[in-house]
Amino acid sequence: MLQSIIEKIEGLDESAMAAARSRQSTLTKPAGSLGRLEELSIQLAGISGKDIPEIKDKVIITMAGDHGVVEEGVSAFPQEVTPQMVMNFLYGGAAINVLAKHVGARITIVDMGVAAEMESHPALVDKKIAQGTANMTKGPAMTTEEAEKAILAGVEVVEAEIKKGLDIVGTGDMGIGNTTPSAAIAAALTGIEAAKLAGRGTGVDDEGLKRKIDAIERALKVNQPDPKDGLDILTKVGGFEIAGLVGVILGAAANRKAVMVDGFISTAAAMIAVSIAPKSRAYLISAHRSQEYGHTQMLEWLGLKALVDLDFRLGEGTGAALGISFAEAACKILAEMATFADAGVSDKE
Amino acid sequence: MLQSIIEKIEGLDESAMAAARSRQSTLTKPAGSLGRLEELSIQLAGISGKDIPEIKDKVIITMAGDHGVVEEGVSAFPQEVTPQMVMNFLYGGAAINVLAKHVGARITIVDMGVAAEMESHPALVDKKIAQGTANMTKGPAMTTEEAEKAILAGVEVVEAEIKKGLDIVGTGDMGIGNTTPSAAIAAALTGIEAAKLAGRGTGVDDEGLKRKIDAIERALKVNQPDPKDGLDILTKVGGFEIAGLVGVILGAAANRKAVMVDGFISTAAAMIAVSIAPKSRAYLISAHRSQEYGHTQMLEWLGLKALVDLDFRLGEGTGAALGISFAEAACKILAEMATFADAGVSDKE
Repeated sequence: MLQSIIEKIEGLDESAMAAARSRQSTLTKPAGSLGRLEELSIQLAGISGKDIPEIKDKVIITMAGDHGVVEEGVSAFPQEVTPQMVMNFLYGGAAINVLAKHVGARITIVDMGVAAEMESHPALVDKKIAQGTANMTKGPAMTTEEAEKAILAGVEVVEAEIKKGLDIVGTGDMGIGNTTPSAAIAAALTGIEAAKLAGRGTGVDDEGLKRKIDAIERALKVNQPDPKDGLDILTKVGGFEIAGLVGVILGAAANRKAVMVDGFISTAAAMIAVSIAPKSRAYLISAHRSQEYGHTQMLEWLGLKALVDLDFRLGEGTGAALGISFAEAACKILAEMATFADAGVSDKE
Repeated sequence: MLQSIIEKIEGLDESAMAAARSRQSTLTKPAGSLGRLEELSIQLAGISGKDIPEIKDKVIITMAGDHGVVEEGVSAFPQEVTPQMVMNFLYGGAAINVLAKHVGARITIVDMGVAAEMESHPALVDKKIAQGTANMTKGPAMTTEEAEKAILAGVEVVEAEIKKGLDIVGTGDMGIGNTTPSAAIAAALTGIEAAKLAGRGTGVDDEGLKRKIDAIERALKVNQPDPKDGLDILTKVGGFEIAGLVGVILGAAANRKAVMVDGFISTAAAMIAVSIAPKSRAYLISAHRSQEYGHTQMLEWLGLKALVDLDFRLGEGTGAALGISFAEAACKILAEMATFADAGVSDKE
């Protein structure tokens, strides 16, 4: 089942990319003068297979999960904040609500593994695998079956959104402690030591940061994840919301939809997705460079360059929301600008 | 008259800034986790004098002018492109039309000194000082009277927009050859040599770049502008659209309105404005770092940090349009997010 999703992912449409590139050079501006927006329009043409791609239906999928590793004192906030913030999302009071509305995107909130009984709410998608992962410093965070189930749940969520209409999906996360498994994933895949990848997350002090690095090192030592096997890494040192986001990415790529990748946690999910299905990389756009230490190395491993750097370190999909607005702008430039010929403007001498 | 505008510019409202800073720390996110957007919301509070500032009416003022120095072969495009692009703005086909619409801003197009008789058009504001500046390699680009008149015309334009409703103004420019006077302004104010400030503009080749650097060096030698006197520099090596933008900036600051500064040309105008009226600096936000060589040094001189770097080198206000969207997002975050208390979310342990 997961294998069939992976096999469905194709390369970008080179013909649509060539057409978009060619059209960019006819528009009334010096060639290349809109820099990253021009590149983005060409990538979006390749993703969608359309010479002039459109971004109308914008969706941010924010997935929540808890982490057994919080027992090790790796976060500045208590675990109860995960379900509290999920409720805040549902009632519209969080940063992602404000920024998604600002860019005209809808939000889907998914419980992938919050460590609490959640009230049922019409806007909450229940894909709970378990009430939080196990403490990865003592063994695998989850079973292989749970990891696969969580990925497939993510595929289901994004495919349901595609049925409603989706031109681009932004990834978002909520989960107290989740920069710890994300840094562990990055360490396992890149071979870079934990101390060079782990940051202060929501704001741990020096002691907390030491505990966090120590927890990552112990988790990697105890579990010995295979650096060539994304599913093994996800199982041993991942999280349910991260696994769900892997599914969102793979499901989007399999359906030729662009993925706007948010910050540190979403990038860890993207690394797992690319490890499992290398072709998914072409569907990814990195929205922003997170202030979280280590994010730059993760983007380098992926071969992605973030669109912007606004010193964000929040998650939820907040950076992705702003990135989605750029993607939409990029498509509008390609679609709506006059050509030199149409506007009667003289081209370069 | 210009002096009275300068004297009207006050410092930021510290009390509103303190209130905004304090409110940011109560919102349901780790303190500081929205980085630049949080800083921006605080600056906008200080500018507007409102604890919770709002950005609803967004205006981009794009000013056009021609430059006698194009005789020296400093641009990749012919001078006729300036009026052609003005018509393109008026008919909605340029990049700034697309991006302004994308962010919900209105555009005002101003003829400050296009070297052509422009057709009258209801949307074109006519403030033409002359049909292009004189060739600055042979003497001053304009007279002191013209420079002052152009600045005051810019003040009038922005004050007319403020009467219609304006919470933030983005600056934009159009003028074949105008990276040459802009680099000359930067060289005069910073003392940095022309070769380290002049870039390829719309895309001159190596020979064109040599001619451009040579033209700037000759203009500075012939005119000997006083590095401490912004008006003198503007007169001798500036341009009419640049002078108009100086007026827009001073007029906005005098009326406590935020200015989103676009790229290379707008930043040269900002440098003149700050040289003439140092207090205007607090009202400036740098939208983006231009790909044009030298822009980084200009921002350093101003003490501004660009919001984003998308490799733009177009002008027109295109970067400012995207920046305005960030400013609006920053205000919405401050105004619309729930507090920890309201949402029942536990704060940091």
